[in-house]
Order: sequence, then structure tokens, then C-alpha cells
Amino acid sequence: MDLKQTIILEALRLFSLKGYLSTSIQDIISAAGASKGGFYNHFRSKEELFHAVLDEARRIWRENNLAGLEAIPNPIEKVKKLLANFKDIYLRDTQCLPGGCIFVTLSVELDDQMPDLAHEVNKGFEGLKSMINGLLERGKESGELKAGTDTQAVTEMIFAGLLGATVIYGVDKSSEKLDRTINALLDYLNRLSPDR
Amino acid sequence: MDLKQTIILEALRLFSLKGYLSTSIQDIISAAGASKGGFYNHFRSKEELFHAVLDEARRIWRENNLAGLEAIPNPIEKVKKLLANFKDIYLRDTQCLPGGCIFVTLSVELDDQMPDLAHEVNKGFEGLKSMINGLLERGKESGELKAGTDTQAVTEMIFAGLLGATVIYGVDKSSEKLDRTINALLDYLNRLSPDR
Repeated sequence: MDLKQTIILEALRLFSLKGYLSTSIQDIISAAGASKGGFYNHFRSKEELFHAVLDEARRIWRENNLAGLEAIPNPIEKVKKLLANFKDIYLRDTQCLPGGCIFVTLSVELDDQMPDLAHEVNKGFEGLKSMINGLLERGKESGELKAGTDTQAVTEMIFAGLLGATVIYGVDKSSEKLDRTINALLDYLNRLSPDR
Repeated sequence: MDLKQTIILEALRLFSLKGYLSTSIQDIISAAGASKGGFYNHFRSKEELFHAVLDEARRIWRENNLAGLEAIPNPIEKVKKLLANFKDIYLRDTQCLPGGCIFVTLSVELDDQMPDLAHEVNKGFEGLKSMINGLLERGKESGELKAGTDTQAVTEMIFAGLLGATVIYGVDKSSEKLDRTINALLDYLNRLSPDR
């Protein structure tokens, strides 16, 4: 792996554990086994690194959460697979993200202190919400959801539920509670099927 | 107000904005207009202050979120009032908690870095969950919820939804989106009524 990628991955690990502000460039340099010069060869500032880390975190997010979705024809089944991936793969990926979901960590840390950076994190949240909403809309059109389902309200429930599950799991690391929360979301989604 | 209380309230404001670790005792002393001696007269350490701040935050939480609940006889209506209070009073209380819900901020910040303190925060989460679950159980017994409702799953949905709404509102401070999320939770609860 080249030094740039090593720095990005070590920064990702440190940001996920300690947040952005409490992680110094020196922490990152030490973790990456780099020199100051090596760091500044690749990044002009910590903020430039932040954006590179966010890109990498988004790549990991997609890789983990979208695994297997393409093979599923049915949009509501895709949402269920996303929920299962989130619970079974993404939140449990302690190698890349030892501190849990980096987007929640960074957004809670930065919302008051560095709103511009928090805004960048927020873009990903908006993207996830539109993806869920789009799938629900398609599921409604194809008759997988009851006619008259308020897909926007369902999107809010699923999205808030995912973020909430992330906060809960962050504190107690209880697989049992995580399963219970995500299963409650799946159950909620199942009840919106026209057969129920 | 005495100095001890001033220190607690200024620490509460600062922790809510910057988190626990990034707030120094000096920051708190300056904000409270105190001296180092004045601080250590009341608190042996930042950690002792943490516990006093948590107590005060819990008092504010109860005052805001439980307002008017006692006068409501009906348990499910109590849950709805709690959700409305959370949205209309608690999260918007920018005077005490300019950085939003301090419990979410602290739990996300501390879960990896100071698990013992995060565990203290977590106790409040568990308390809220048992309160919601108890009300749902009573509502089910009195026929306000459909027979067979899985109250534990509903509790998970409401609790995760509240935490998720807090994270979302923290980033974008959008009242409109907050209303939408909490209204989706209320709608979910309404659909569990036997008349639906």
C-alpha cells in the first residue's frame, strides 16, 4: 500500500475512535509510520485529509452496506438486505472502523464546532435517505407496499432507526440489542406489505 | 446562583457544544468567572464534575420531556406527549444545551475513549427505554394497543427513532425535518391502535 493510502486508513481508524478534533496530525503520522514531510507531500492540511478520509469511508460504507443488493430484483427486499448488511457487516467492521460508524461520530462531534465539515458528512446522510426513499417508491409502485404508504415517513423511520441503532451499539456494543433494534425495523417494514 | 451551580451549568453548556474531552477545566473556570481555587473547592476533579453535570442534565431532561405527562391518564397518550415534548421543548432548549442532546454527544464521544463514563450516560438510556416499555405494556393491557403488539420491538423503534432524530437535528438544525421524523414516530404509534 502506498503512503497516501496508509495515512488515509490510519486517519480513518483514529477519527472513528477519537473524532476529528482530538486526533492530531502527529497522531496520524505516528500511526502511519510516516514523517512530517511524507504527510505534507500528500496532504496540504488536516482538512484536506478529512475529505480524503470521508471519500474512503463512503467507499467502505457502500462496499459493506450495498453488498449483494444488485442481485436482488425486488426494491423492498433490497432495503431489507441493506438493513441486514448494516447490522451484520457494516457496524461490525471493527478493522476499518474500530469506533463504529464514522459518519455518526463525526457529525455529532463537528455539528457545533465545524459546521462546514459536518455539512459534508450530512451529504452522505441525504444520499442514503434518497436511496431508501427511491427504493420504497419503486416498491410501492410495484405493489410490494400497501397502496397509500407514506414512503417519506417510512424513510424517516428507517433512517432515524439506523442512526439510533448506531448510537446504541456504539455505547454498549451489544449484538443482541443491535439485532433487536434492526429486527424491529425489519418487522415494521414487513407490516407495510399488502399481505399484512 | 452559587458558584457550584454556575460551574455545573457552564460545564453543561460547554460539554454539549465541545464534548467532555475537548473542554478543559480552564475553559469551565473562565466561562463561570471562577478561580482555580473556587473550582477545586467544589470539585476534586473533572470527572467528579462530569457526574454533577450528568445529574443536572438528567434533571433538565425530566423537566422538559416529562412536562404535562402526569396529568394524562392514558399511557399511550403519555408516550405521545413525551415525543412531542422531545421535539418541541427538549431538543429546542438551546439555552441549557446549545449543542443539542448532551447524552448523545457524550455517549458518541466517550464510548471508545472513556467507556466507564459512557456507561454512566448509558444508564439514562436504559431508564428511558424501560419507561417507554412500561407505558406501552400498560397501554396494551388497557386495550389502547392492538392485542399481540410486541411492545419491546415498539420500544426499540421509538428509542432508536428518538436518538436518530437527535443526530439528524444536531447536524442540520432543521425544524422541518425534526417534525417529519417525530411525526413519523407518532404515526407509527397511531397505527398500533386497535381502531386502525
